[in-house]
Amino acid sequence: MTNILNLTDKHVDADQFGTRATRLSLMARAGIPVPDGVALPFDVVAALADGKMPDLPDDLLARPVAVRSSPGDEAWGGSPAILNIGVNDAFVAKADNARWAVGMYRRLIQNYAVGVDALDPELFENIYYDTLKLADVERVEQLPDADLLGMLAGFKAAYEDETGDHFPQDPKAQLTGALQALAEGWSRTSTRMLRLAKGAPDDAGLGLIVQKMAVGLRADGGSGFVQFVNEMTGRPVVTGRFLPNSQGQDALMGLRTPHMISEAEREAAGQSAQSLEKMNPKAFAELEQLGAKAADALKDAVQVEFTIEDGKVWLLDASAARRSARASVRIAVDMAESGAITRDQALLRIEPRSLVEHLHPQIDPHAKREVFGTGLPASPGAATGKIVFSAEAAMSAEAAEEPCILVRVETSPEDIRGMHAAKGVLTVRGGMTSHAAVIARGLGLPCVVGAGDVRLNAKTRTLTALNGQEFREGDIITVDGTRGQAIVGAPPMIQPELGGSFTTLMDWADAARTIGVRANADTPMDARVARKFNVDGIGLCRTEHMFFEEDRITVMREMILANGEKDRRAALDRLLPMQRSDFVELFEIMHGLPVTIRLLDPPLHEFLPHSRDEMQDLAEAMDIPVSQVINRAEELTEFNPMLGKRGVRMGVTMPEIYEMQARAIFEAAIIVNRKAEQPVVPEIMIPLVSANREVELIKERVDRIAQDVAAELGALTDYRLGAMVETPRAALRAGDLANSSAFLSFGTNDLTQMTYGLSRDDAGRFMRDYVNQGVYPEDPFHTLDTQGVGELMLLAAERGRASNADLILGICGEHGGDPASIEFCKQAEFDYVSCSPFRVPIARLAAAQASIRHAQK
Amino acid sequence: MTNILNLTDKHVDADQFGTRATRLSLMARAGIPVPDGVALPFDVVAALADGKMPDLPDDLLARPVAVRSSPGDEAWGGSPAILNIGVNDAFVAKADNARWAVGMYRRLIQNYAVGVDALDPELFENIYYDTLKLADVERVEQLPDADLLGMLAGFKAAYEDETGDHFPQDPKAQLTGALQALAEGWSRTSTRMLRLAKGAPDDAGLGLIVQKMAVGLRADGGSGFVQFVNEMTGRPVVTGRFLPNSQGQDALMGLRTPHMISEAEREAAGQSAQSLEKMNPKAFAELEQLGAKAADALKDAVQVEFTIEDGKVWLLDASAARRSARASVRIAVDMAESGAITRDQALLRIEPRSLVEHLHPQIDPHAKREVFGTGLPASPGAATGKIVFSAEAAMSAEAAEEPCILVRVETSPEDIRGMHAAKGVLTVRGGMTSHAAVIARGLGLPCVVGAGDVRLNAKTRTLTALNGQEFREGDIITVDGTRGQAIVGAPPMIQPELGGSFTTLMDWADAARTIGVRANADTPMDARVARKFNVDGIGLCRTEHMFFEEDRITVMREMILANGEKDRRAALDRLLPMQRSDFVELFEIMHGLPVTIRLLDPPLHEFLPHSRDEMQDLAEAMDIPVSQVINRAEELTEFNPMLGKRGVRMGVTMPEIYEMQARAIFEAAIIVNRKAEQPVVPEIMIPLVSANREVELIKERVDRIAQDVAAELGALTDYRLGAMVETPRAALRAGDLANSSAFLSFGTNDLTQMTYGLSRDDAGRFMRDYVNQGVYPEDPFHTLDTQGVGELMLLAAERGRASNADLILGICGEHGGDPASIEFCKQAEFDYVSCSPFRVPIARLAAAQASIRHAQK
Repeated sequence: MTNILNLTDKHVDADQFGTRATRLSLMARAGIPVPDGVALPFDVVAALADGKMPDLPDDLLARPVAVRSSPGDEAWGGSPAILNIGVNDAFVAKADNARWAVGMYRRLIQNYAVGVDALDPELFENIYYDTLKLADVERVEQLPDADLLGMLAGFKAAYEDETGDHFPQDPKAQLTGALQALAEGWSRTSTRMLRLAKGAPDDAGLGLIVQKMAVGLRADGGSGFVQFVNEMTGRPVVTGRFLPNSQGQDALMGLRTPHMISEAEREAAGQSAQSLEKMNPKAFAELEQLGAKAADALKDAVQVEFTIEDGKVWLLDASAARRSARASVRIAVDMAESGAITRDQALLRIEPRSLVEHLHPQIDPHAKREVFGTGLPASPGAATGKIVFSAEAAMSAEAAEEPCILVRVETSPEDIRGMHAAKGVLTVRGGMTSHAAVIARGLGLPCVVGAGDVRLNAKTRTLTALNGQEFREGDIITVDGTRGQAIVGAPPMIQPELGGSFTTLMDWADAARTIGVRANADTPMDARVARKFNVDGIGLCRTEHMFFEEDRITVMREMILANGEKDRRAALDRLLPMQRSDFVELFEIMHGLPVTIRLLDPPLHEFLPHSRDEMQDLAEAMDIPVSQVINRAEELTEFNPMLGKRGVRMGVTMPEIYEMQARAIFEAAIIVNRKAEQPVVPEIMIPLVSANREVELIKERVDRIAQDVAAELGALTDYRLGAMVETPRAALRAGDLANSSAFLSFGTNDLTQMTYGLSRDDAGRFMRDYVNQGVYPEDPFHTLDTQGVGELMLLAAERGRASNADLILGICGEHGGDPASIEFCKQAEFDYVSCSPFRVPIARLAAAQASIRHAQK
Repeated sequence: MTNILNLTDKHVDADQFGTRATRLSLMARAGIPVPDGVALPFDVVAALADGKMPDLPDDLLARPVAVRSSPGDEAWGGSPAILNIGVNDAFVAKADNARWAVGMYRRLIQNYAVGVDALDPELFENIYYDTLKLADVERVEQLPDADLLGMLAGFKAAYEDETGDHFPQDPKAQLTGALQALAEGWSRTSTRMLRLAKGAPDDAGLGLIVQKMAVGLRADGGSGFVQFVNEMTGRPVVTGRFLPNSQGQDALMGLRTPHMISEAEREAAGQSAQSLEKMNPKAFAELEQLGAKAADALKDAVQVEFTIEDGKVWLLDASAARRSARASVRIAVDMAESGAITRDQALLRIEPRSLVEHLHPQIDPHAKREVFGTGLPASPGAATGKIVFSAEAAMSAEAAEEPCILVRVETSPEDIRGMHAAKGVLTVRGGMTSHAAVIARGLGLPCVVGAGDVRLNAKTRTLTALNGQEFREGDIITVDGTRGQAIVGAPPMIQPELGGSFTTLMDWADAARTIGVRANADTPMDARVARKFNVDGIGLCRTEHMFFEEDRITVMREMILANGEKDRRAALDRLLPMQRSDFVELFEIMHGLPVTIRLLDPPLHEFLPHSRDEMQDLAEAMDIPVSQVINRAEELTEFNPMLGKRGVRMGVTMPEIYEMQARAIFEAAIIVNRKAEQPVVPEIMIPLVSANREVELIKERVDRIAQDVAAELGALTDYRLGAMVETPRAALRAGDLANSSAFLSFGTNDLTQMTYGLSRDDAGRFMRDYVNQGVYPEDPFHTLDTQGVGELMLLAAERGRASNADLILGICGEHGGDPASIEFCKQAEFDYVSCSPFRVPIARLAAAQASIRHAQK
């Protein structure tokens, strides 16, 4: 059995005594006035639940004490504290029936009855309010002494009626009852289930603290809470509440209006009641000083519970100050800069995902939200605008400089320009990796997808919410892509804030991390965003997006409709200079950083128009019968496009497309390198590989094109050729692939799809059910499935490196921006992760954290 | 360097001397008159190609010799023999210019000039025909002696003109030239590439044989070939050709009409020329006797090349008799029954796939074929009938008792009844595992899919071939599903023949095999076919097919269109008795053999009608607005149905469907077991598992239903619950799955799709290209990909067995009927393979072969 310790002892270990005990011990030992007391370790409390009472110091009950829970983690619960233990008839008599003593006794009876004997709290509340009513007063402070004593008598009588016993008068009996009740409460099945649901381990223990009461009920006394940083910004400021003649949580209860702590806060709120700063400058100064001491002792900005007893300030607890995500960064950076914590500690304190709040506008957390639709939070941030139902309408709105929200059943590549024009996107269908979601994240555009509870009627051009509320084109709505909500009207917003602490933290992250962070960037705009976020290169440039621009899609379609290779080559010859200029621009922006270009991936049918009208237009533009367009589109239709003729399968069977792309890459590299200080080394990536021979075939052709271009332009360019590992088979055969590949990059979206046999576009229908029922612990498109997909990746990494020691390994799926997945990649010693530009800050921080933890092992 | 051996020596090993040398040695040592000679091993011949002449016995050239190739495998080629080496001016003079001697010399010069000096054969053919023309005769036998000598002089002069040298007179020089020419021919790049393409190893060697000539050109002489079994049936019969005064391949050349060997054959052919049997009964009897000896020595039915010299019969070679697949079985069984070979040897000699010729009608191999379309050989056998373009038309034709061929762009579940009604199926699209292919194989229905060179015009109801030939409904065509051809009209057919040797072989196979063979059987009809083929059980009963029957599809659709669980349950209550009666029938047919029932797998949208008209009909039948049908169909549409909400995903999120199925299974088992001698133990299989929790959830529910049914009916039934391993993740997590599963069955179709990221329905577009270019060595949907899919299976087997030693392992994809895949399953020590009923005989033989080879190791 572990020893019971005094709060002033060393080694009050949180793993044995709980976090509160540790906090109090740290504070006590830092000289902060914390009421004396002892901490009971987990094993002693467990024995208590079995009826075994520990030996406690004899003098413990010299004055009233409180019993408080100290679980291993605040979130795991624990019964409320029981205060004023030791107060009894004799105590009150000795105090001459002072109101404060009666108050303590009354509270003890109520707490004890509820907490130990499980009586109904209403019993006492009824007596309480009946007494006020009979005396015709509003608050207990206004009760005449006699009525107050009457209330106490009523409490005692009620206790006796319900339990059949007098209220226990022996302080030791009271303490035993309280300790056992709290210990038993922890082992009850219902509380156990509750904390398991919150992630507590099965054997999570509870510590208990028995601590002398600091009594705030007397004159000159009171209690309150205070924190020393602004909750929203993290800037130093004293903010809190104080209630004279109170104890415990009174200041939070709202029975009386508490006073502000600082004058500044009081003024800002326009409150007339005096601030503590004014009322009791000494206590205020002491609080400021103790707050700083507590922050120093606990190495974090704190929120403090305090009691003033006979003019002296006691700290009852100091926990981490409440803070927004932005405030977290400021606080961590400030603390590291003050030397209170290390930079590594500062980096480890910030939840990487929370950085999105720095990057995108957010709805003011205090604003009222009228939510009319709920979907998946596909791309973070919030945006307000008028509803448009088509890409065209979005472009018109942009031209008119009217912010708009594009609302679609789902989006397709033809909507991309509309998405560029819109401020936010809302779709009725689709999952976290649907077209709309992926593109929106790429654009940093707030987006909610799969809002199945709204109905879009294309004919009547109306959007109808579940409650029947109807919206038309032009109505103002807001999408909150952080929470996945569609909201009526325009709630107040908080704008993004980079720079300052954010930049400092990012710099530290870059210094700490030992794994590269690249961006998935398809366009010059993406590349510029990525550079702004200080990436190590581009890990995935999807060339298909380049062909959807207005001047290109037509040529692309001509290529697809061409009769035979000759016509196809003619169309490709026209695409070549466009593609080359794309790469020239990209290479110039990236200043010699690596750029991984994926050769064309999607099936050709994705580039053809879908509606009869558009087909007609295309046929007219090309001067061919519309039947030819329809026939070709039908020929190209696939049952399962995800598993169809795409990627390298197209490259192998229609070589001229990849040949054009390789040529464009090499020509662009030579053009840029002629004047660049840092030469670019393009990385050419082959998608959807399932057999090594595919890589060999493409490599032969690409190498030949490189030689041709070198001969024509009289200049050589270095390049690397690699394969994208997206099929389970590519992972299994990575040993072969690595023989012909300079790098392997895991396309974890597709790899997840194929490993699970699960289309990301169709998964939305049941994913929520699946995660709720615990079938999948998480959406595997969101967080990497380390047990299945991850095993394939580790296996591929091992086999790949065994046959090619210089092999570069990276990941370029959506998971590249997910902290848990980045941790996995660091453990697997990958060279880099690549994610969408707006996820880069998150990835950089997550990479730093993974690197720090990796080094600590 | 290996020793040169005499043909009468022992240990003339085929791996060192080639197969011909080994054959001749076996024959010579069995006392068969084979002309004396020596065999040169591979290394000696390789040295020869480098110019190093070996030492040969001095007496070798005492009379003329032939030099023949002896490669390691007949299929790998080798230059033609050079005969009559040693013949020269002196030889002819010594023979007094006898016509036979002149003939030998003339042949030697021509062969040598072409084979050794690479002269153009036309040079000599021109002289030959010019001589006949000038003499005004038709055949060389009619030439006057002087003209014959003139022809010889012309040959010699031509040789001299072209080479600048006299024709070599030294027999030793001739022999050296011939040996070196044949040796060099083998190492030429072109011949090397040719044999590599035929599967020869890179270091394949050539042996050579120098053998005394048996001269058939003299009076009483001649040459011919004969075999002793019927090529089509394998029955004993003497059949062959003989040409008097001839040598070498003359009897095959067609310059003169050869004689039949036997009287019976001559009579059957109605030939007037005498048979050898009549002309020379002694030689005929000798041939019969030598043929039997050769068969005994070579342990196979043989085809023999012979020469009669001065009345004596010499055998020049005896190779495996030509035989059809059916004949092979008869021959192997006959030889094993005669004790010439063992049953294991007989079993190993039959190519399992060739058994399809026993099972299905075939087009007579001698028939002329007018092919108008070529596709994939999706289901073997041939069928003739009139063209129908719809399932309805097929059913009408069946009602009118008119055989028909169903021609569709592709088939869908709605065509199944039409496929039942048709004699054969032809589709324009689809791969080896498309719907049409899978169903046709299940029905044993000849089927050609993916005939991309024909065009089906639905409007004009015409089928157009590449050459413009047009077919309309009612035109008679034939599909050859063995070769993948669509043929005009009705060529003659050969009907299937079971029983006899086939049955004997199958019995031996069952005795030899140590791996189970089950059938994939969905219907009572399938199950009856399977029982006829003596299966060990049903490895896969796909329950979805049960819902397409007319009385059920409507209820099924009502279930799908139901508003909420209550209505869905009401529809399911109506499906329950139908489903139960399905299982009762199946269980009764299978007589206590295991029956694995897969719970519903396909996505619900597959059960909804596709055309607007059908939707209208359904809406009217159900008395709901058609928009409700359309909306539901749209809601259910999926981007990638293969990777969508199907299988256990439906089972988890809509529990009532699987609950109904489980109840039907248990009720049926109890009903059948009440009166059955052998109780059935149903095996319930969960499709598309990707996480163990899915199995646990379904198991909980199924176990509960089992208890409910047991309580209601007062009887218990044993059952096993298992998972289908179709996703790579299920394979990786097999260790978990095995904890809650009694069996795991690999669904290798889907597992292949997901491992490759390749839809079987869409793969047809490029699979041929891919296999031709060697990207994939074979279509992985056809032969199991042991390097990728296979690795996952082995890994799953190992992990599964590690956590559950009693785990039953099987395979139930299309690969279950593929011999190479069965070999793999036996090596992995699976418990059974399961394949479509008509593949069962193939699987039983392949399983026997795999078991024999496994035991031999």
